[in-house]
Amino acid sequence: MKNFYMQLALNEAWKYQFLTYPNPAVGCVILDKNEKILSIKAHEKAGCNHAELNAISEAFKKLKPEISLPKEANALHEFICKNHQGIFKDSIAFVTLEPCSHQGKTPPCAKLFSELKFKKVFISVKDENKIASNGALYLKKQGIEVEFGILEEEGKKLLKPFLKWQKEQFKLFKLALSMNGSPYGKIVSNELSRTYAHQIRSAIDLLVIGGETIRADRPILDARLCKGKAPNICIKTHKNLEEFDKNIPLFKVPNRKIYTHIPEEAKFIMYEGGENFLKNFKDEIDMFLIFQSSNLNNKENIKIPLNLTPLFKANLGEDSYGIYEF
Amino acid sequence: MKNFYMQLALNEAWKYQFLTYPNPAVGCVILDKNEKILSIKAHEKAGCNHAELNAISEAFKKLKPEISLPKEANALHEFICKNHQGIFKDSIAFVTLEPCSHQGKTPPCAKLFSELKFKKVFISVKDENKIASNGALYLKKQGIEVEFGILEEEGKKLLKPFLKWQKEQFKLFKLALSMNGSPYGKIVSNELSRTYAHQIRSAIDLLVIGGETIRADRPILDARLCKGKAPNICIKTHKNLEEFDKNIPLFKVPNRKIYTHIPEEAKFIMYEGGENFLKNFKDEIDMFLIFQSSNLNNKENIKIPLNLTPLFKANLGEDSYGIYEF
Ligand SMILES: [Zn+2]
Ligand SMILES: [Zn+2]
Repeated sequence: MKNFYMQLALNEAWKYQFLTYPNPAVGCVILDKNEKILSIKAHEKAGCNHAELNAISEAFKKLKPEISLPKEANALHEFICKNHQGIFKDSIAFVTLEPCSHQGKTPPCAKLFSELKFKKVFISVKDENKIASNGALYLKKQGIEVEFGILEEEGKKLLKPFLKWQKEQFKLFKLALSMNGSPYGKIVSNELSRTYAHQIRSAIDLLVIGGETIRADRPILDARLCKGKAPNICIKTHKNLEEFDKNIPLFKVPNRKIYTHIPEEAKFIMYEGGENFLKNFKDEIDMFLIFQSSNLNNKENIKIPLNLTPLFKANLGEDSYGIYEF
Repeated sequence: MKNFYMQLALNEAWKYQFLTYPNPAVGCVILDKNEKILSIKAHEKAGCNHAELNAISEAFKKLKPEISLPKEANALHEFICKNHQGIFKDSIAFVTLEPCSHQGKTPPCAKLFSELKFKKVFISVKDENKIASNGALYLKKQGIEVEFGILEEEGKKLLKPFLKWQKEQFKLFKLALSMNGSPYGKIVSNELSRTYAHQIRSAIDLLVIGGETIRADRPILDARLCKGKAPNICIKTHKNLEEFDKNIPLFKVPNRKIYTHIPEEAKFIMYEGGENFLKNFKDEIDMFLIFQSSNLNNKENIKIPLNLTPLFKANLGEDSYGIYEF
């Protein structure tokens, strides 16, 4: 069952893939001492609780529904350490990445496991980050069993975007298709899919878009479906920026920066476009996010040979989506 | 967590959807008295163990790995009843369909739960079958708690093919597409997808195929990938059967019946074909099984407007597949 529980943690983490930028996506499952599942949670957004704290506070709520917990991470951590009454003694955790051992925006998760007297922590992938690492060493010193390498290959896939944007630039291409492979039509994917895409828009450093699309669709390219921050834009065009109609909504978004090249400081970049844009840029892309509806239509498909390797696939309502690399 | 466990049972059952014909697809999850997951199993094939017996014997193996179990269902049932030593006392079961209470090819599952002193059985859907039903009543009489209606809507979706083929005829259309919606090319889906399709071929009463495909592909249309039984064939053609080249491999399969119409006694029928075949027959189809690869190519897509509602989606290696209705 080790793999089963780690897979639950991995799947939960993938749901927030790209949204945790610049942090890695991490998932955590907590079992009680009898191996009953208490919680399955993930790190959801940079600045918010680590996966471990999210999972432990969820488990706390389940075991002590009468106690209301503080929201802020430091206060939450402290409250749980003071009020746990031994309810987590001999519990078991599955974490997709080695728990942190340093005080960042949130207190160290390794300390949380040890304060609560966990029996064992299963870890998929070792954290190679010099500041955050050595959580496992800390756990072992506190007498907690640690086992590395559960679904390690899967855990490494989950970390790929993080490792790339941490080192240099990570480029994601977003594509929406009907089931018969057509990107054409006013709205191809459903609201859940588009909301996820807007969440990503509000996390990225830069959205890259073609001049052709801008002239044809006159888009706003914001993150309204998740009430998020509209991204800065890079317009790929042979024309001069001055030649665009400045009444196109995207130019009216306040505080938005608009580039015609990719600035070096942009580390997480999303490309959005159709067939031509994909053809022009596919070779510089790290990963593809492809939404696909459950409908066939009578429109043309895209015809660009591309052998993709799926890293993760899931459903958003009646749509499917996959995260792929070459 | 009730929904979580029932969803595990449902997902496991869907993996064997169509393969249990003429039986319904059923899944079962067993938890011990502390709510630790012991097993997740399904009914896999008509004549083989019911989901409940499969799940209980899997849990037995986990708790008593030193004891080897008999294979045959009646012997297995009897052995577990005699040798359980109380290991299932106060256990909990999640079953997608009300457990049977009649002696069929296998002994009644309701009796098994009661012999083993289960505490509670959660059931998604009530069994309306007159012979097999009343398992819940039997359980209650034996002092076992029963709770109906867990993910009932999902449970009913799982039963749809069964309810249709039991009453009249169930028609499934199988389609294999690339990610950009093309059915063209020598092999579109991977070996896992094709093996599942062959397992279905070996379960159905009849495979319906177009005369055009037969002349173009000269197929054998057997179930070699699962070493299963080659299905009987119905050839949809305007020509006379005599006009086909009898050296086409499908005509050489021993004991195969070949029709040009659908015989009334065929209750589970699979259609296999491409764009034209889909266009001609889509309106008489109950469900669509659509395999989709992770590759884009430069080939034409199919262009038949079809708004499908997914009942289940999953992955087979790098392929995805969905089971849809109109
Ligand atoms: Zn942490
Ligand atoms: Zn049964």
